[in-house]
Amino acid sequence: MGSEMDMGSEMERNDPNPSRRGVLRAGAKLAAAAAAALSGGRAVAGGNGGNPENLPPNLPEWGRTLGAGVIEEPYGTPSRHEAHVVRRYVPWLTADRIGSVSFTPLAELHGIITPNGLCFERHHGGYPDVDPNDWRLMVHGLVDRPKIFTLQDLMRMPTVSRIHFLECPANGGMEWRGAQMSGVQFTHGMLMCCEWTGVQLKHIFAETGLKPNASWVLAEGGDASHLSRSLPIAKLLDDCILAFGQNGEMLRPQQGYPVRLVVPGYEGNVWIKWIRRLEVGDRPWYHRAETRTYTDLLPSGKARQFTFINEVNSVITYPCPEKPLHGKAGFVEIKGLAWSGLGKIARVDVSVDGGDTWRTAELQEPVLSKALTRFRIPWEWREGTGPFYLQSRAIDETGRVQPSVHALREVRGVESIYHNNRIHTWLVEKDGTVVNVQIDG
Amino acid sequence: MGSEMDMGSEMERNDPNPSRRGVLRAGAKLAAAAAAALSGGRAVAGGNGGNPENLPPNLPEWGRTLGAGVIEEPYGTPSRHEAHVVRRYVPWLTADRIGSVSFTPLAELHGIITPNGLCFERHHGGYPDVDPNDWRLMVHGLVDRPKIFTLQDLMRMPTVSRIHFLECPANGGMEWRGAQMSGVQFTHGMLMCCEWTGVQLKHIFAETGLKPNASWVLAEGGDASHLSRSLPIAKLLDDCILAFGQNGEMLRPQQGYPVRLVVPGYEGNVWIKWIRRLEVGDRPWYHRAETRTYTDLLPSGKARQFTFINEVNSVITYPCPEKPLHGKAGFVEIKGLAWSGLGKIARVDVSVDGGDTWRTAELQEPVLSKALTRFRIPWEWREGTGPFYLQSRAIDETGRVQPSVHALREVRGVESIYHNNRIHTWLVEKDGTVVNVQIDG
Repeated sequence: MGSEMDMGSEMERNDPNPSRRGVLRAGAKLAAAAAAALSGGRAVAGGNGGNPENLPPNLPEWGRTLGAGVIEEPYGTPSRHEAHVVRRYVPWLTADRIGSVSFTPLAELHGIITPNGLCFERHHGGYPDVDPNDWRLMVHGLVDRPKIFTLQDLMRMPTVSRIHFLECPANGGMEWRGAQMSGVQFTHGMLMCCEWTGVQLKHIFAETGLKPNASWVLAEGGDASHLSRSLPIAKLLDDCILAFGQNGEMLRPQQGYPVRLVVPGYEGNVWIKWIRRLEVGDRPWYHRAETRTYTDLLPSGKARQFTFINEVNSVITYPCPEKPLHGKAGFVEIKGLAWSGLGKIARVDVSVDGGDTWRTAELQEPVLSKALTRFRIPWEWREGTGPFYLQSRAIDETGRVQPSVHALREVRGVESIYHNNRIHTWLVEKDGTVVNVQIDG
Repeated sequence: MGSEMDMGSEMERNDPNPSRRGVLRAGAKLAAAAAAALSGGRAVAGGNGGNPENLPPNLPEWGRTLGAGVIEEPYGTPSRHEAHVVRRYVPWLTADRIGSVSFTPLAELHGIITPNGLCFERHHGGYPDVDPNDWRLMVHGLVDRPKIFTLQDLMRMPTVSRIHFLECPANGGMEWRGAQMSGVQFTHGMLMCCEWTGVQLKHIFAETGLKPNASWVLAEGGDASHLSRSLPIAKLLDDCILAFGQNGEMLRPQQGYPVRLVVPGYEGNVWIKWIRRLEVGDRPWYHRAETRTYTDLLPSGKARQFTFINEVNSVITYPCPEKPLHGKAGFVEIKGLAWSGLGKIARVDVSVDGGDTWRTAELQEPVLSKALTRFRIPWEWREGTGPFYLQSRAIDETGRVQPSVHALREVRGVESIYHNNRIHTWLVEKDGTVVNVQIDG
């Protein structure tokens, strides 16, 4: 650690009188004055050889008065000092907030779990207020026994919980088309990772049976937009879930309450929310959201279609534009998130020189398939040095390597909005400011 | 699946007209009438051979009108239909809500992550409203370089995230002393499992250095109660964390915002909240919370002291008194949680006959050390049969087996309140009612 960790050498010895706490209670005025004098935090206690009567130098008001009682909040909320940690949206990006997107504040998050209150939103017709007693799922088409499921039906079936990331394929799309968003909340914030609980689709189709030619499924949302996507039935039978639980509790309204589809590794728009219908067929439906949108236009003028998988990707979340290094000379822990729609993250390399040299970061256990993986690597930074170009490059268990901007453009051109998993760059300026840049790393 | 899953045989064919949605928008009155007629959920669609124009039978209002936009809630909250999922307390248990406890609604939870809004509370002097800029941690005593850390100091050090359970050792204590609590929220609800992020204590002590005779540490809370506990320094150096993150975001005020101690596997009261002081010494301090309380009184009149570890335990969370089986004849998925303060759960057995016969449940991956582990096992239940006595018995990777009530009483007598990890029993009556009972299984 740098010398910045040393809090100074001023010494304060507290009153060794064992009845001090009684005195504090009785003499609040005196104590308050002492606390005010000491709470600057520059005071350091001496080495006291284990004397238990020594008290820390700052005694703020909250340490001397009773606090709030249990169930003051039957359902808890964050500290009022964390009011800046919220989802945000980009006013110029959409015509209104109904068909729009908000972004996860990645710079403020720790670990791999995204708390439910901060999971990004993407609505095509706003989010409905669904009474769970009214919810129905119809399963029909090429099945032997078409069925309608209530929530009670679903919740009594065999369940499973899985931790998986969910990412909109447009994540990074604004960057790809030339916008230089101001921070990681907007460059990569259409991303979350949660523990999803629900019923595996294989159990649903075991109930209904499948005709021999069943090969595709249309999943339709129950909200006003009725977002509909065609999915290969093999994927649904493999690892997909009709989820009602998210991070231990019921889904939030913005995430499809009471039931959404969980399609591990696939782009977020196929994780149909407020799901009301699964139709089994023998070919894709070519609905609006798989023809007009959510296709990848190539330089040839042709478009890639049904490109479901969000391939290996990563981003550095500290430092970042929202969390610069001003006054933080010395030890810096570079932190970030990596993920792959094809399995586990195998390795993440980090560069501070725009890709000339790389060091391998530590991966936080447990490393789970199709889940966010936290990586960390130490760095020594000195004010006035640089500039530095910070990059992360993830490799997944299939051996796929996150591509450079250049390599991705060679293949995809510049018209494609989706599946932009190129290596991302933060510029750390000499004063510690962090800026979003694109370089041909 | 039982025949109860069959939703009946009534058939409804929806209008195959592709412009039906336009009609619905134009003719809201007609559509509303149709929706009302169909939303009872007894209607079943026919097998339609993949015809994409068929619509599910119920078209509630929320599926025909635009919903709320993004950032309607910058920080999201649960659906209003989940208002019953809250922490609760027991009025007769404590004199007030300041020195009290609230309980996690285990019956309503899924998976292993406890959402932050529902984590149980245990306060000794209420919970303070801490301005993170005022927070300080003093580390002193048998160290080479006493130091005071600010939150900024802590957050820039090397960090780690770990998923661990946190349990009050009094969990089940009311039962042990004869109370028959009405549901799993109160029998086992002083329990949570979260992803904790922070700085390992080994890094803190690397900063301060340790004197050769350093062997115990006093951890003191900054709230008005200044709850203080002595801990072996070997444990702190092994796997303990000064945590500021919980499930991806900053700790909630009720959980020690901005910083608490995470002591994996140890009883909750040593996970000091709003921590302000770590004093290093060469022996325990024998403070109030390790002499008057949090000791285990044995039949001999002697008390076990510093019994930190919450040993192997489990509970069935479905069915339970809050979630009975009325009208649920047929397939039942028995679900529960298991945990051990000594490592991973190796196996969970389930009995429906009060321990005469056992079947081994499936464990939900990932099975993590000192974390909740979800177990599940199928059961066929018929109304009018029974009564059944449901029990779960967990075994951890050290080979320790959750004891019967009888075995635990042989050793501990009946005066001990804490560390009651006996096998728990739910009685399922013939009509599906679930009752909390104690049997000598």
